[in-house]
Amino acid sequence: MEKKIPYKTYLEESEMPKQWYNVRADMKNKPAPLLNPATLKPMTVKDLEPVFCTELAKQELDDTSAYIDIPEEIQEFYKMYRPSPLVRAYCLEKALGTPAKIYYKFEGNNTSGSHKLNSAIAQAYYAKQQGLKGVTTETGAGQWGTALSMACSYFGLDCKVFMVKCSYEQKPFRREVMRTYGANVTPSPSTTTEVGKKILAEHPGTTGSLGCAISEAVEVATNTEGYRYVLGSVLSQVLLHQSIIGLESKSAFDKIGEKPDIIIGCAGGGSNLGGLISPFMREKILGESDYRFIAVEPASCPSFTRGRFAYDFCDTGKVCPLSKMYTLGSGFIPSSNHAGGLRYHGMSSTLSQLYHDGYMEAVSVEQTSVFAAAQQFARVEGILPAPESSHAIKVAINEALKCKETGESKTIFFGLTGTGYFDMFAYQKFNDGEMSDYIPTDEDLAVGFAGLPDINL
Amino acid sequence: MEKKIPYKTYLEESEMPKQWYNVRADMKNKPAPLLNPATLKPMTVKDLEPVFCTELAKQELDDTSAYIDIPEEIQEFYKMYRPSPLVRAYCLEKALGTPAKIYYKFEGNNTSGSHKLNSAIAQAYYAKQQGLKGVTTETGAGQWGTALSMACSYFGLDCKVFMVKCSYEQKPFRREVMRTYGANVTPSPSTTTEVGKKILAEHPGTTGSLGCAISEAVEVATNTEGYRYVLGSVLSQVLLHQSIIGLESKSAFDKIGEKPDIIIGCAGGGSNLGGLISPFMREKILGESDYRFIAVEPASCPSFTRGRFAYDFCDTGKVCPLSKMYTLGSGFIPSSNHAGGLRYHGMSSTLSQLYHDGYMEAVSVEQTSVFAAAQQFARVEGILPAPESSHAIKVAINEALKCKETGESKTIFFGLTGTGYFDMFAYQKFNDGEMSDYIPTDEDLAVGFAGLPDINL
Repeated sequence: MEKKIPYKTYLEESEMPKQWYNVRADMKNKPAPLLNPATLKPMTVKDLEPVFCTELAKQELDDTSAYIDIPEEIQEFYKMYRPSPLVRAYCLEKALGTPAKIYYKFEGNNTSGSHKLNSAIAQAYYAKQQGLKGVTTETGAGQWGTALSMACSYFGLDCKVFMVKCSYEQKPFRREVMRTYGANVTPSPSTTTEVGKKILAEHPGTTGSLGCAISEAVEVATNTEGYRYVLGSVLSQVLLHQSIIGLESKSAFDKIGEKPDIIIGCAGGGSNLGGLISPFMREKILGESDYRFIAVEPASCPSFTRGRFAYDFCDTGKVCPLSKMYTLGSGFIPSSNHAGGLRYHGMSSTLSQLYHDGYMEAVSVEQTSVFAAAQQFARVEGILPAPESSHAIKVAINEALKCKETGESKTIFFGLTGTGYFDMFAYQKFNDGEMSDYIPTDEDLAVGFAGLPDINL
Repeated sequence: MEKKIPYKTYLEESEMPKQWYNVRADMKNKPAPLLNPATLKPMTVKDLEPVFCTELAKQELDDTSAYIDIPEEIQEFYKMYRPSPLVRAYCLEKALGTPAKIYYKFEGNNTSGSHKLNSAIAQAYYAKQQGLKGVTTETGAGQWGTALSMACSYFGLDCKVFMVKCSYEQKPFRREVMRTYGANVTPSPSTTTEVGKKILAEHPGTTGSLGCAISEAVEVATNTEGYRYVLGSVLSQVLLHQSIIGLESKSAFDKIGEKPDIIIGCAGGGSNLGGLISPFMREKILGESDYRFIAVEPASCPSFTRGRFAYDFCDTGKVCPLSKMYTLGSGFIPSSNHAGGLRYHGMSSTLSQLYHDGYMEAVSVEQTSVFAAAQQFARVEGILPAPESSHAIKVAINEALKCKETGESKTIFFGLTGTGYFDMFAYQKFNDGEMSDYIPTDEDLAVGFAGLPDINL
């Protein structure tokens, strides 16, 4: 009799990764360099140091080291909430009646409720090592801010969070979790920064965006002695830290003797998707294995599927370096009816390059279909998923249903980035039938594209 | 070199318990029988059948079978979210500077956020087996209602939840989670039942109690074709199902070659405490091992420490059987400043008998000290605990600090029953310094005691 694969596969602590994997080292076409917005020359560590911790600035620019040691203290912290389980979705398979095998890596079993803690603890560690007093950041859906609050509390660092205003208002309890961990939380745009005041003057009544909040956090970090800025997505350093997701997943698949055919992740700035796929992408780049990678983004903020591959500002205030990426323009602000995260106008430069080079597909999905998939998943698999994660669920279900039609028994693997406990406002709208979809028109997108910097001409 | 004990110990799926353990079978003095409130004679299965599923009625009255098989379907469901980890609290030990070794069994890694799912799935299973349409229940803090909603959705049963009004108002998102799983949620006391109307007439403006909500749920179950009532605590059947916590814990301790000296659990109705300690209690009863058991209850609802050991009604409406237990009287309603669960006037009859016979200690703690312990725990161990669970944390910390004074290296084990994501209203009060303590006076308690039934005379 074939040995039954367990519902959940955990690595032993001794099997947990001791190094992060940096996919840039193996890419044939490296991501284009970050540019200094003043000189349009590639950023150096020295250029980045006023904003980022030195060690993180080095990681940001390092596209040659394939493996980077995870410091001992971070390994210890990881053991508090990791390894995360690789779950076989037996109940979902049964409910769908599909011959496909469905797996997911569940990153929600920690108080931040998502994978964000993987990078937060690394960034807080390096800030502490450098002797800093504190860090500033932005948060959209709130997972990153919560994760950073937890990490800072662990290392005794001060933590100032600019929270996108619509989330701040819809998620008062997220704010309280951050406060419980000792963080200071400000709704963005705010009048506490110059850039915030400027954005408020230009867009009165705006519910904010990640791009605005980033500008405010960077302004405070660069103006405050002993502070640096940290970011939970988009950056190459974040993808590096998040590679723990993919590395654990790969080891777990090896352990149970399985191998995915299709790997699916939701994509906002790329932190989860990049971390999830990195070690699998390595095999694809090196020609050792083939995988189908699918990035899933919201139809209301479609960077990959309708954006331009161009240099753009990472923030609305245009104070950050320029990054070559798939972007809707730093002036693009998603519709306020958009629930959850994945609101960022741009995309990781690494993932952008991989997508541009044909290593990956991308699809966009509408939010009511995403919440319907979330509800279906919750009812059979027990886990109440975050809206962000549910984008991946939606496409995993689609792929499993295709297998049902064709009779193929593919192995589908997706990243379940987190839980939806703080997204019940959005679930309530869905439960009450009051959720609607929004797809920007070409004219809507033209506004964002018009703001792309001249360097692309 | 001594092998380091991992942060988290998981059993393999093959090592998970296949039988529940029924501590009543090994007790020298059995819990006193439930009495029919009309005849004052011991309840029979036939008496219980109009309220409970037949199989659950049998389990309720079975005080001789030590081990009861866990049906295959329930074992499969358990594998979706179990085994739960046995966690070594290295970071808490370090923060306290104690020579004690601290362990906790973490039951919060499922969407209900607590251990309640362990019994919910069992009760839903037996209801389904009996061909019922649905079940009714009450919920206080909301964990039980959420757990039951999940279980009912899994088996396709209708689920009607009466939610204690103060929780309904303070926790709108709990309600949305239940709705996402398809449940119907009514604030209690309500005008949808006769008993609810009566309680509202007698106590206008009441924020409700578990005792009221139970009466309403029982009324609906007994008046509706194809429905039965289910309960998440107090009952012996619930302690039976929750024994999975203690059984897994014991196996995990055996696996790492450790053994607790002190076992601590929070006590509301006793579901967690009873489940946690059962297999360890067996060894103590049989003289195989000695353990110190500590039940922790809120100072505002002190059933063990200030209650009477007497026959009492399990509900405010006095429609349920009489149980001999430590009780504050079914008319006792805790102060509205009391946060979280553990609001029940009575206690499991099994635990009551064990406490009465000297097998267990009990202490009460005040809520501001509980939230301070919760915050301290969250900041070093990463998990944001439920207020209920934090009662156990508070006493575990106390015991660890005693070890620091004496230099003893005891092994302290507590049950971390769940997470506090839906308790941020209470955390906010604590964060804002607006939380107060309440200890009922003897006069306050006299009101409840005055309502004890005559049978105790």
